[in-house]
Amino acid sequence: MIQKLISRIDETKAPVVVGLDPTLAFIPEHIKRKYFDRLGETAEAAGEAIMSFNRAIIDAVYDLIPAVKPQIAMYEAFGVPGLIAYEQTIDYCHDKGLIVIGDAKRGDIGSTSAAYANAHIGHTTVGNKSIRAFGEDFVTVNPYLGTDGIKPFIDVCNSDDKGIFVLVKTSNPSSGEFQDQPVGKEGRPLYELVADKVAQWGALSMDGDYSNVGAVVGATYPEMAGDIRKLIPNAMILVPGYGAQGASGSDLKGFFNSDGRGAIVNSSRGIIAAWQNERYSSYEPEDFARASREAVSDMIADIRSAIG
Amino acid sequence: MIQKLISRIDETKAPVVVGLDPTLAFIPEHIKRKYFDRLGETAEAAGEAIMSFNRAIIDAVYDLIPAVKPQIAMYEAFGVPGLIAYEQTIDYCHDKGLIVIGDAKRGDIGSTSAAYANAHIGHTTVGNKSIRAFGEDFVTVNPYLGTDGIKPFIDVCNSDDKGIFVLVKTSNPSSGEFQDQPVGKEGRPLYELVADKVAQWGALSMDGDYSNVGAVVGATYPEMAGDIRKLIPNAMILVPGYGAQGASGSDLKGFFNSDGRGAIVNSSRGIIAAWQNERYSSYEPEDFARASREAVSDMIADIRSAIG
Repeated sequence: MIQKLISRIDETKAPVVVGLDPTLAFIPEHIKRKYFDRLGETAEAAGEAIMSFNRAIIDAVYDLIPAVKPQIAMYEAFGVPGLIAYEQTIDYCHDKGLIVIGDAKRGDIGSTSAAYANAHIGHTTVGNKSIRAFGEDFVTVNPYLGTDGIKPFIDVCNSDDKGIFVLVKTSNPSSGEFQDQPVGKEGRPLYELVADKVAQWGALSMDGDYSNVGAVVGATYPEMAGDIRKLIPNAMILVPGYGAQGASGSDLKGFFNSDGRGAIVNSSRGIIAAWQNERYSSYEPEDFARASREAVSDMIADIRSAIG
Repeated sequence: MIQKLISRIDETKAPVVVGLDPTLAFIPEHIKRKYFDRLGETAEAAGEAIMSFNRAIIDAVYDLIPAVKPQIAMYEAFGVPGLIAYEQTIDYCHDKGLIVIGDAKRGDIGSTSAAYANAHIGHTTVGNKSIRAFGEDFVTVNPYLGTDGIKPFIDVCNSDDKGIFVLVKTSNPSSGEFQDQPVGKEGRPLYELVADKVAQWGALSMDGDYSNVGAVVGATYPEMAGDIRKLIPNAMILVPGYGAQGASGSDLKGFFNSDGRGAIVNSSRGIIAAWQNERYSSYEPEDFARASREAVSDMIADIRSAIG
């Protein structure tokens, strides 16, 4: 699967992911009103409004980018109707030829991790049939439980030609509380140990010169990116934290390999809520999707110039 | 919320949680056949079979125990129809007076963690209304992202009178890969640092002499339980790993405070798949729920004798 992502990045010349993390606050009033009028102020109306909003943004940006990253929490917050919108968003993105990275940060052990892997990137057996639950192409995974939690995902990467991104160093201010702790005799930060494991796990699912096991490293910690990059030369790095979380293109060079490959940068709010940003204030709320397209183009230009 | 759980433990004299982690392999053929005949070998049939199985087990054991712990991964594996069964299971348990601990191990940052907190223990705003997504009483949470990931859950614990259990030391064989790493100058294991944080976070949501912020510590590591117990005297410890994962009642004393409170022990497969266990082989598959009831009684007796 990782080669498919790399091909799509090469085709679009855009190592960029659009984060489909809708909150109702990002959705223009005219869309919300339409579904609230029809279905009341319900979870069902919220799910429909989210799907309508996503569809317009996907239509406006799909030809510019290789992949999207829906954040499942934003859908789970509306319960079953929200998760129906999550499923529909994945299907719609696939219809448009986009690769879908499910940002679920799941992590458990043994048969439970296998259930999550099946839910998101694999298949679940029902009698003699095999059903697909959500069907993302990649899913993000939390490493705190160790190899027992990751191995079931790698098995599914191999059986279903899919991929995962393991949290190594997250973009948030308090990520250092545990991730930066100096461990062992040498006092290396914990995230480096996790990166070492990502390299080991990655060897179990190689696809060309890259592995189906990638890593998440926040754009907000560029000073750590170079060291992590060296520890996991075969891992694609998914980089959150660009834009709304404060990082810009110039922070990103260290995340890429010398051939300009090896990282893909996410922006969520900066793209999907662009119409609320002063920079794109010439767009009316009704034109929110065109604002998103311009924001994607600006982001791609910023990142291309940074990685040269 | 934690006082409600403690009261229910006192009433039942059973510091025991039944893990509702159904796989189709645990469900007797006659139930599966009923729904497969009606709906085909589909996710919808699986969801209905799971709900039917859960209902029978809940009916058979609800008066013996304070709480249940559905593992959401087992439902998520069937996609939306599975999550409908998850929601129905929660509602059915509430109707029977049981406290529900959603074993979701969610963890993200900022507004995303808030979305997960709202999804599971809080409410989500839709227009001028407030909707409940899944409505568990407690949810398990992964600490790898630090305080940014936990604080939004604590806010919801306080606003909605709910609780969380933070993963400290998990029950699986490889949990030590990261959790046991010696950190800092003193070389304390990482899980102790996480326990320290649980104590700090716990102070933000006290409810009587216990906190709404509890901890997960695996029964399979009894030698670590005493040290962890001292670091978090006000935290309820949720203890997985009893039974199928190898721990028995005699391993459990260190998890409890000297007053016999402060821990609650989970068994999943050992209860819900008791009918497949040689020990309960006198029960026919049709009597699976009665086998579960006997297994719960045996577990309660084992734990009572251990904690004296």
